[in-house]
Amino acid sequence: MKPVKVGICGLGTVGSGTFNVLQRNGEEIARRLGRELVIEQVGARRDNPACNLSDTSITRDIFEVAKNPAVDIVVELIGGYDTAKELVLTAIQHGKHVVTANKALIAEHGNEIFAAAAEKGVIVAYEAAVAGGIPVIKAIREGLAANRINTIAGIINGTGNFILTAMAKEKREFADVLAEAQALGYAEADPTFDVEGIDAAHKLTILASIAFGVPLQFKSAYTEGISQITPEDLAHAKELGYQIKHLGIARRKPGGIELRVHPTLIPDTKLIAKVDGVMNAVMVDADAVGPTMYYGPGAGAEPTASAVIADIVDVARSIDSVSSVVAPLAFHSEAIDDTKILDIEEVESAYYLRMQAADHPGVMANITRILSDLNINIEAINQKEVPEGEQFADIFMLTREVREKDMKAAIEAIQALADVSGSVVTIRMDHLGH
Amino acid sequence: MKPVKVGICGLGTVGSGTFNVLQRNGEEIARRLGRELVIEQVGARRDNPACNLSDTSITRDIFEVAKNPAVDIVVELIGGYDTAKELVLTAIQHGKHVVTANKALIAEHGNEIFAAAAEKGVIVAYEAAVAGGIPVIKAIREGLAANRINTIAGIINGTGNFILTAMAKEKREFADVLAEAQALGYAEADPTFDVEGIDAAHKLTILASIAFGVPLQFKSAYTEGISQITPEDLAHAKELGYQIKHLGIARRKPGGIELRVHPTLIPDTKLIAKVDGVMNAVMVDADAVGPTMYYGPGAGAEPTASAVIADIVDVARSIDSVSSVVAPLAFHSEAIDDTKILDIEEVESAYYLRMQAADHPGVMANITRILSDLNINIEAINQKEVPEGEQFADIFMLTREVREKDMKAAIEAIQALADVSGSVVTIRMDHLGH
Repeated sequence: MKPVKVGICGLGTVGSGTFNVLQRNGEEIARRLGRELVIEQVGARRDNPACNLSDTSITRDIFEVAKNPAVDIVVELIGGYDTAKELVLTAIQHGKHVVTANKALIAEHGNEIFAAAAEKGVIVAYEAAVAGGIPVIKAIREGLAANRINTIAGIINGTGNFILTAMAKEKREFADVLAEAQALGYAEADPTFDVEGIDAAHKLTILASIAFGVPLQFKSAYTEGISQITPEDLAHAKELGYQIKHLGIARRKPGGIELRVHPTLIPDTKLIAKVDGVMNAVMVDADAVGPTMYYGPGAGAEPTASAVIADIVDVARSIDSVSSVVAPLAFHSEAIDDTKILDIEEVESAYYLRMQAADHPGVMANITRILSDLNINIEAINQKEVPEGEQFADIFMLTREVREKDMKAAIEAIQALADVSGSVVTIRMDHLGH
Repeated sequence: MKPVKVGICGLGTVGSGTFNVLQRNGEEIARRLGRELVIEQVGARRDNPACNLSDTSITRDIFEVAKNPAVDIVVELIGGYDTAKELVLTAIQHGKHVVTANKALIAEHGNEIFAAAAEKGVIVAYEAAVAGGIPVIKAIREGLAANRINTIAGIINGTGNFILTAMAKEKREFADVLAEAQALGYAEADPTFDVEGIDAAHKLTILASIAFGVPLQFKSAYTEGISQITPEDLAHAKELGYQIKHLGIARRKPGGIELRVHPTLIPDTKLIAKVDGVMNAVMVDADAVGPTMYYGPGAGAEPTASAVIADIVDVARSIDSVSSVVAPLAFHSEAIDDTKILDIEEVESAYYLRMQAADHPGVMANITRILSDLNINIEAINQKEVPEGEQFADIFMLTREVREKDMKAAIEAIQALADVSGSVVTIRMDHLGH
C-alpha cells in the first residue's frame, strides 16, 4: 500500500517530539500499520534545533500544510485557540484528516469541529489532549464500550500533582514548591492554567463527554485551584487516612452529571491516592468492569508524541474506510443526549473543614448548632490546643455528605460568629464510589 | 444500518456475564456503535439460571452456532483446548468473525488460528484473554503503536496476587491462604494453573508477542510458582524496601527476549508494588511514552464480559471494511520477526537468597567465597541470631545482577557445604527498568 502522508503544524515541545519519534520509530510503526508513514511537510515559525530537518520540506505558513494536496493527515500542534481553530477547520474543509493534542480547542470548540468533520467525512483525533501519553481516550471510547460508565476521577494535571506531592512529603508551602516547579520547567511563569484547574477542567470536559454521551460543555465545569491548601491540611488529612489530590471528577447522578475540578480528600487505600509527582492517572468506574485505572506521564515531548502518533496510526489504518471509525465523542452524534450538568450548588459531597476559633465555652456549641440546623452531620472533630500566648485554636472537621448549597450557608453563618477568626477553609472529600 | 448478529458459545461464568451485559447495556452500546448488536443464538450444554433466555434461540450443539448462516460473530467462551480450537476453526471456515476469552487457546494455538483467519479474511479478537476487563491488548496494540516497547511487567493472575497479598499483610502461610482463596472461589480445587504460573505464562506469551512482534511461543516461557514463598520472605523483603509479587516479565534485551513468570522482589516505591488482592495490573515501559500502567479486575463474569463485548463492538464496527482492522498480533504477519526467546539460564537478574547455616566461624567466608568466585556481588547480608537451643541461623542476602546459570552453580556449591542445612531459597529481584 502507498505511504500515508503527514503534515505537522507546530515544532515546539510536542511538535518536535512527534517529528523525532516518527523518524526514529518509523520502521517499528510501519511493522504495525502495514504501510509507511511519511512526513510530507512541516509548518513552523522557526526550525527547532532538536529536529534534523535536512530531508524535510518546511514552510513558515502552517495554512500551506492544511491546504497541501499531497498531505493526508494534518497534525495541529501549535496550541492556543483562534489560529488553531482556523487551521483545523481549514484542514477539514480541504478534506484532510486531523490529529490534535489541543485540549482547550477540543473542550471549547470540539462540538463545532466534529460537526464540520462529519460533514466532510474526515476524522478528527485527539488522544493526546487528555493525560498525555496514557491511551485513556481509547480505553474509554473503545475498551469500555460495553459499559454504562458511572464515575471518572482523574489526576490530570501533572504540575498540580507535583506541587501537592512535594507539599505533603516535604511539608513545604504551596508558593515554595510552585517556585521549584517553575524552575524545573514543570510550571509556566503564569501558572494559572495549571494550579487553578482550568487545564484539568478542559481534559475533564472531554472525558465526561465520551463517558456519558453528552456534548462538550466546558462552561458548565466547576473549577477550584490548590493555592489555598497548606501543608497542615495535607498532614491532617493523612492522619485521618486521606490524601489530598487535585482531582477532576465526572459522575453520573440521577439528577444530572457532576463535572468538577477541585482539591479532594480521597482514602489513601485507593491506588490513585498513591500516584505521585508529575504522573497522571484516570480512574474509571463502570457497571460491568468495575474500577479500572490508567497511569502514566501526562505531559512532555515524547509521551505526548506517543499519543499523537497512535492517532496518526489509527487514522492511517482507517483512511480507506472511514465508515469503520469510532464516533469522535464515543457516542454517535444522533445518540448524544442532553443530560444536564449539575450546578456545583446541587452537588453533594462530604467535607473537610479547617477554622480558627477562640477558646471560649460555647464556641463549639455554636458551630455545631449551625451545622445541625442545616442537617450537616459531623464525622470527626479535632480541636488542637491553643498555642501558648495565642487566642485562637485550630479546629478540623470531617462532615458527612451534604449539598454544596447547604454547606455554603453553614460556612457563612460560622464565619459570622464573633469567636471565629478569618475564613473557614473547605476541601471536598470523595470515597470514589459511584 | 442493519443489526450485527452475535452467536455465544458457552454459558458459564463469562458466557452468562456476556449475555447479561449485552442485554442490560444494549442501548448504551448501540449509542456508541451506531447500530444494534443482537444475540442471534446461544450454544450451551445447559441453560444458566443467571440468564433470562426466554427470548433467545438456544442449541445444545455449539457447532451449530459456528455454522449458522445468520450469525456474523461467533463468541467462543467454552474454554479449554481441543473443542475450543475446533469450534474457532470451524467458525473461521464458515466466514465468521471470532471473539474469544481463551488465553490458553491463543497462547498455544494462536499462530495457526490467526493464519486461518487471515486466509478467510475474518477477524479473531481476544482482549478478554489477558487481564480480564483491563483493555491492555488495545492499549499495547493501538495506544502505544508509536513506541518501541522495552519491558512488560504484569500482575496477571488474581489468585496468586490475592494469596501473596494476604500472606504479606496477615503474616499467614501459603497453604492457609490458598485454602481461603479456594473457599472464596478465587482459586480452583486444583490450583496448579494459577499458583504455578501457567495461566500467567499464557497471558505473558500473548503480551510479549504483541509488544515485540514475535510469534506466540508459550513453550519458551519460563514458569515458576509461589508455593515456596514464606511469610518471612515477604517480611524480610519489606524491611529491605521490596514487595514480592508473582510477576510476568517480558523484556527486550540485546541477545533476545526474556519471557518469564516467577515470584519477584520489586521496589515498593513502584505503583505496581501497591496492587493488592485479586486485582491485576500491567506495566509497560516504552521508548517514547515511558512507563504506563493499566489496572483493574483480571477475572470475573462481568469484567471479562466487558472485554469480550468491547471486541464484539470493534469487530462490528469493522465488519464492512475488514482491511482497516488492527493486525491480530499488533504487527503485520510479514513483519513478525524471529528474535529469539532467551533461555532462562541466559537471563540476568539480581537475587534474594535465604539459607540456614551453622553458626561456625568460617561458614560465612565459605559462602561468600563461592559467590565471589563466580563474580556474584553481594548487595546486602543479614544474619539473624541463632535461636536459643537451635544449631542453625537464617541468612538473607541480596545480590547484584548475575546470569541465572552462574547463580545455579553457586547455589549448588553452597548447598553442598556441610554447614548449610537444606536448600537455598532463591527469589529473583527486578527494579523494573529497561
